[in-house]
Amino acid sequence: MSYSVSLSKLLGSIGAKEGSKLSVESGGRTYKGTLMPHHDFSGDDIVILKMSSGYNIGIRVCDDSVIKVLEQPVRTDKKETAVEAKEGLPGITLISTGGTIASYVDYRTGAVHPALSASELVNAVPEIREMANISAKMLFSIFSENMNVEHWQKIAKAVEQEINGGADAVIIPHGTDTMGYTAAALSFMLGDVPKPVVLVGAQRSSDRPSSDASSNLTAAVRFCVKGNAAGVFVVMHDTPGDDSFAVHLGTRVRKMHTSRRDAFRSINAPPFARMDKEGNIKTAAAGRQITSDSAVARTDMERSTILLQYYPGMDPCLFEDMVMRSKGIVISGSGLGHVSEDMVPLIRKACDNGSVVVATSQCLGGRTNLNIYNTGRDMLSAGAVTVLDMLPETAYVKLMWALANSASADEAKKMMATPVAGEMSDRRTHDV
Amino acid sequence: MSYSVSLSKLLGSIGAKEGSKLSVESGGRTYKGTLMPHHDFSGDDIVILKMSSGYNIGIRVCDDSVIKVLEQPVRTDKKETAVEAKEGLPGITLISTGGTIASYVDYRTGAVHPALSASELVNAVPEIREMANISAKMLFSIFSENMNVEHWQKIAKAVEQEINGGADAVIIPHGTDTMGYTAAALSFMLGDVPKPVVLVGAQRSSDRPSSDASSNLTAAVRFCVKGNAAGVFVVMHDTPGDDSFAVHLGTRVRKMHTSRRDAFRSINAPPFARMDKEGNIKTAAAGRQITSDSAVARTDMERSTILLQYYPGMDPCLFEDMVMRSKGIVISGSGLGHVSEDMVPLIRKACDNGSVVVATSQCLGGRTNLNIYNTGRDMLSAGAVTVLDMLPETAYVKLMWALANSASADEAKKMMATPVAGEMSDRRTHDV
Repeated sequence: MSYSVSLSKLLGSIGAKEGSKLSVESGGRTYKGTLMPHHDFSGDDIVILKMSSGYNIGIRVCDDSVIKVLEQPVRTDKKETAVEAKEGLPGITLISTGGTIASYVDYRTGAVHPALSASELVNAVPEIREMANISAKMLFSIFSENMNVEHWQKIAKAVEQEINGGADAVIIPHGTDTMGYTAAALSFMLGDVPKPVVLVGAQRSSDRPSSDASSNLTAAVRFCVKGNAAGVFVVMHDTPGDDSFAVHLGTRVRKMHTSRRDAFRSINAPPFARMDKEGNIKTAAAGRQITSDSAVARTDMERSTILLQYYPGMDPCLFEDMVMRSKGIVISGSGLGHVSEDMVPLIRKACDNGSVVVATSQCLGGRTNLNIYNTGRDMLSAGAVTVLDMLPETAYVKLMWALANSASADEAKKMMATPVAGEMSDRRTHDV
Repeated sequence: MSYSVSLSKLLGSIGAKEGSKLSVESGGRTYKGTLMPHHDFSGDDIVILKMSSGYNIGIRVCDDSVIKVLEQPVRTDKKETAVEAKEGLPGITLISTGGTIASYVDYRTGAVHPALSASELVNAVPEIREMANISAKMLFSIFSENMNVEHWQKIAKAVEQEINGGADAVIIPHGTDTMGYTAAALSFMLGDVPKPVVLVGAQRSSDRPSSDASSNLTAAVRFCVKGNAAGVFVVMHDTPGDDSFAVHLGTRVRKMHTSRRDAFRSINAPPFARMDKEGNIKTAAAGRQITSDSAVARTDMERSTILLQYYPGMDPCLFEDMVMRSKGIVISGSGLGHVSEDMVPLIRKACDNGSVVVATSQCLGGRTNLNIYNTGRDMLSAGAVTVLDMLPETAYVKLMWALANSASADEAKKMMATPVAGEMSDRRTHDV
């Protein structure tokens, strides 16, 4: 248990564990709720309960406090009910990977329903079954901070298989932490995918009054059915309210807030589309047409790729070993993509060694340009390449893919400079 | 020269160099302008000229093109004119460090006036001499991607000296690339500094029609004179127009765009103040009072500190050596501050070794919280600490300072958790 030694003993002695429903008498009042893990901002003598309202309170436990267990958490295995297909509706496959969107009751208890199965998720949001025939598969169930390159590859292969098996669209519920990276990876791996492939997440779990799980999932289904565009997208809240949803290109999206429902933002491009609650869709640009072509997943990735943020005081000696052991290095530089002049010899050494060094900007907004200042020009002459307004995270994912799908460093550099999935602007147009 | 071999030869044969004024006849038209360096987005046969409008054009050089040198760049050493002090006006010291704001003509030519001296900068903006008696010093002249910890220390010492020598305020013209890092460093080093200390930059150099150099400098002086608040601030354009300026707390500001004039943004807090063109100031919160106390610069910094962005596929083995050699490690984690479970043992090893590991979020917006998911709780139990909504870059700078100004890792952790200069929100309040 995550509580202090004395509180853990006290709670253990009455059989209370995280997820237990307790009554706590303290200071003349009685509180009832579900025992939550200890919070590092609260004192050693504070017990955290989740109230029926969905919000948590902290209660100071004194010598005369009385704590009772009212109910223990029970893991119920819900039966999955088969749903009959309705004629005329498109067929969508939901490939579940885990994350908050798949957490049925509070994931914080760690005890009751840590994850919904994919079909439970579908059953929890009955309105989506009116729009499409939805079949659900659970590929894995992890929080997205543990999502790795192999997971991206498995998801891409599963999407390929579903589309080539007849699915009209694929929806991928995903943890929000690294959903942007996965969306970029699928964008490159799936290339000209002929159907909509939509990642969707939730910032608040389904048991909370403010949950965005079902509204985001509904919006994702709606976009698959009515959006009329092929490609890899992320659908999430566009505003804190429940009335607007944004459809982001998988290569342009970034999680920009730790907790807000509208945390996901398109950077250096408007969202591909916006949808209101009634399902009206306004697209910013014409998308790729949906076709009956096959999906092809090119999932090879060069794992020996790193992403480094430049900062003042960065010591090139400390980074030398790591850089020289990597085939691809994406630097999230300052301003237009710079590093200090101390770092330039290391870039040269890496490039001379056959590695590809890509300069991006930690500003996130705007285009990189290494031609304006001397430092930038030194970086170019050392062999670094720029990728205009591509996000550092997208450049990292693309570089893994470009290195694995090219015959040489030079070919990989050319691939980096050529848009594959909307990841960079047209060089002839102006900055957003 | 940065042009292709054949163009370099051609230009060299007529004595043209970057900064030369040329006429170029091509395709029946004649263009006149200053020769700029080669641009990596343009072809090998394109010459770039800066026109008198301030904008650049590319001209294709064909076999029948005629290029002539009209004028060579001349370095003139302007005399500095002494300005008499006016009674009743506050005294402001301008400590120049370089950057775009100090570039008189185009820094891109690398030839004519690569930097303005501090007093030239003052003379270039006569209106500020109506508001204050301004004395100007040049501490160094570098672009800010080369700004290092020693530079921060020198600036802090110079500010201390100026304030204790009687200055009512100090203004620091600075390159924009790393101005946010320097602002954070000065905020911690100068602590309860009794006067306004304002960093100011320019996104466009003074020779360009769209330059923000003089308007930002004027706004900085105005805030020093009328803002009535002590502390370390950054003053820059708040909008793309010339009518609104934002005053950011030095610990909350981040460059969020590579080229826009309103690139600087306060994150997780409103700007400390906003100013219109007439000099009306609206502050979001009461600032610290200006006093006649002495300034004290605590400039010790622990250089063995690193800033790492977490990304999926991050290999703990590759980072182990670097992490174990560092006394302070700031991780810009995913979502609420997470890394993958693979990285947790390395965090534990670093903490067991006496290092301080601080978890921040690459989302930038919002608060970190390692209590919600298992991965986060594992990070806490491994010894990582969180710093609420502090920016990763600010946390990096603060950790260097906290480690150097404390007797133990535990004391440094306590300093990290205690706001010094507005760098984090009050834990009892709600998220912005």
